[in-house]
Amino acid sequence: MRIETIATGDELLTGLIADTNSTYFQQQLLEKRGLTVRWSAVVRDLREDIVEALRAASARADAVLVSGGLGPTADDFTAECAAKAAGVELVEHAGAVAHIRERFHKRGLEVTANNLKQALVPKGAEVVLNAEGSAPGFVLRIGRCTFFFVPGVPREYRWLVDTMVLPRLASGEAPRTLAVIKTTGIVESKLEALVAPLYPKYPNVTFGYRTHPPENHLKLLGAPADVEAARRDSLALIGELAFGEGDETLAGAVGALLLERKQRLALAESCTGGLVAAELTSVPGASAWLESSAVTYTESAKQRWAGVTAQALAEHTAVSEVVAHQMASGVRAAAQVEWGASVTGYAGPGGGTQKDPVGTVYLAVVGPGGFERVARHSFPFDRDRVRRAAAWALMDLLRRSLKA
Amino acid sequence: MRIETIATGDELLTGLIADTNSTYFQQQLLEKRGLTVRWSAVVRDLREDIVEALRAASARADAVLVSGGLGPTADDFTAECAAKAAGVELVEHAGAVAHIRERFHKRGLEVTANNLKQALVPKGAEVVLNAEGSAPGFVLRIGRCTFFFVPGVPREYRWLVDTMVLPRLASGEAPRTLAVIKTTGIVESKLEALVAPLYPKYPNVTFGYRTHPPENHLKLLGAPADVEAARRDSLALIGELAFGEGDETLAGAVGALLLERKQRLALAESCTGGLVAAELTSVPGASAWLESSAVTYTESAKQRWAGVTAQALAEHTAVSEVVAHQMASGVRAAAQVEWGASVTGYAGPGGGTQKDPVGTVYLAVVGPGGFERVARHSFPFDRDRVRRAAAWALMDLLRRSLKA
Repeated sequence: MRIETIATGDELLTGLIADTNSTYFQQQLLEKRGLTVRWSAVVRDLREDIVEALRAASARADAVLVSGGLGPTADDFTAECAAKAAGVELVEHAGAVAHIRERFHKRGLEVTANNLKQALVPKGAEVVLNAEGSAPGFVLRIGRCTFFFVPGVPREYRWLVDTMVLPRLASGEAPRTLAVIKTTGIVESKLEALVAPLYPKYPNVTFGYRTHPPENHLKLLGAPADVEAARRDSLALIGELAFGEGDETLAGAVGALLLERKQRLALAESCTGGLVAAELTSVPGASAWLESSAVTYTESAKQRWAGVTAQALAEHTAVSEVVAHQMASGVRAAAQVEWGASVTGYAGPGGGTQKDPVGTVYLAVVGPGGFERVARHSFPFDRDRVRRAAAWALMDLLRRSLKA
Repeated sequence: MRIETIATGDELLTGLIADTNSTYFQQQLLEKRGLTVRWSAVVRDLREDIVEALRAASARADAVLVSGGLGPTADDFTAECAAKAAGVELVEHAGAVAHIRERFHKRGLEVTANNLKQALVPKGAEVVLNAEGSAPGFVLRIGRCTFFFVPGVPREYRWLVDTMVLPRLASGEAPRTLAVIKTTGIVESKLEALVAPLYPKYPNVTFGYRTHPPENHLKLLGAPADVEAARRDSLALIGELAFGEGDETLAGAVGALLLERKQRLALAESCTGGLVAAELTSVPGASAWLESSAVTYTESAKQRWAGVTAQALAEHTAVSEVVAHQMASGVRAAAQVEWGASVTGYAGPGGGTQKDPVGTVYLAVVGPGGFERVARHSFPFDRDRVRRAAAWALMDLLRRSLKA
């Protein structure tokens, strides 16, 4: 079954708003019917473009959801275009007229001629009165294709998608599910190289990759049983590079491991400026496992809160393995917790040395039983991305340390 | 000039993400060139659909921006489809190969065969090396239409739109500009009520409102002279509720005021968990005016680093005016800087009391000459939004305190 969408509206093409209605329909369609939208068009409030989009879709698709342009104002003429594309007249729908009159009456408002324009639908259309607004939804066949017309107001759109559109779409013969496996610390091409050996084994699963820096996700789309098998095989190949699946986050994975071990963490952050703490505390209940973070943005703060020595700063500078290690040990001792972790580096645009240019970051994790790990990374990115990459690298080092 | 866009990617049609790239292009196109996108298509990662979309657009449009599918993985084949639609071969571009090798070399990574796939472009295409990624952008004529191909990764997309696409599009007849005035701490309807008296004076300026929680922006669109006059009048009406314009940020406004005064700030954060520090340190050069932030997520951390007394915690709890005040004074004294600021509250979902339910936040700012300000806010939102609202409220209190 080939399904398309057409969204109408100048505001969708002038950068004012993104078309988030379609995202809702796509999610519901996949979740409730196991179906995927094949093609989506956004067109301006121009009669010729709307008619052309309807005709083009009718030649390709089995079902099309058309949104927007059902309001009372002069730039609303989707019903008129639908009639033209179908080669039928516009007719007034008595039920829709009564519905509009009743809604206005309830609010103590007068019904004007342009309000009643909303009761005009293409002849032969099946009308569904809209509990959330005055414009009715309607279903119209053009050629062999079924068109569903709904308003663009999000609340009305969703109500009509739920009550008019989805119930009229049969489940796909083969319901499909989507699995997402999340990694950080490897580039997309490396992730694909790990998983590519599975392609021949799962010809009916679509393997997709999405970069959401500093994360790379593997997406598996297909029949539930195939996706489940491919998911297990992929996880085995990706190994400990995978930090989570679906809605899981790296911060959540760190928190879950600390909770499981009943241990706590203190942080010392320099170049990330609080990003690691902000990310970890986005997890509800983080106070059970995160004691504190010392955002030590100056040398004096590093000495005061993270136990860094003046000697280490003088000999090695604030961006060094020695200082990273002192920061992690220092906050761990001060907070009297099991784990200490730190990050210090040059986020740019200024700073850096010949040996350690902008983008260089040192990480340290210190834990129970003499556990110590220090790492150096080079992130040749701009300030924002260096900071995010450094924060994610520290969380991932923590995750792997907690698993070790 | 008829301009269209084609975005490729299964993730854009399965409800995973909305196509916000196109929104950026639309905004830049309108602002920098006075042009509007006429038609936009989103298609799946299917060769036949991409080729069909390219052919359909080439028959209608003068210029088309195509995004996505230029990565190194198996589901990336937009360049191949472009070659097919144009009836030319794919050829390896030597400059792109060198660019990819250099990027990988810098990061100490090996170049694999699928990485070099990104250097394949349709014969005759003009190649633009991409400063933000390995896949080059390219420009290709198909029939009488000029196609611009760019990656879907937002950072790369934006860079290529700015440097490759926009400079190659001539301006529309009537250039239009966009002015943005940014506020926080007032709702959209209040912002509109402040500015609405200007509507009759500027019939040719479009007044738009955009909610980007916890900020509300006023957008003015029209001819440059009209927009400039409406901008001045709007600023006069909005007054000190406006923290910036255009690309300016609230964090940047706080930093600029501290720099101007040659004063420094220390923070103590509880429920925001480092968000305020992370936001402030996103400003380049923040180390000149931000000394530190103590993310004191537990009572012991509040005592250790922010000088909060056991008595205050016992008598007033950690979420109270007294503790907020002690936190701000405590970090200010410890860091020996002019300004101390703090935030403590219940972000939820757990916690809260009858008097101070989830969403209650106390803020404090302490400064030179006995300056002290404490505020209480109620944010009836979910955890993420409470944290952001609290962080923005503290930055705005700081901004107003620094202006006082």
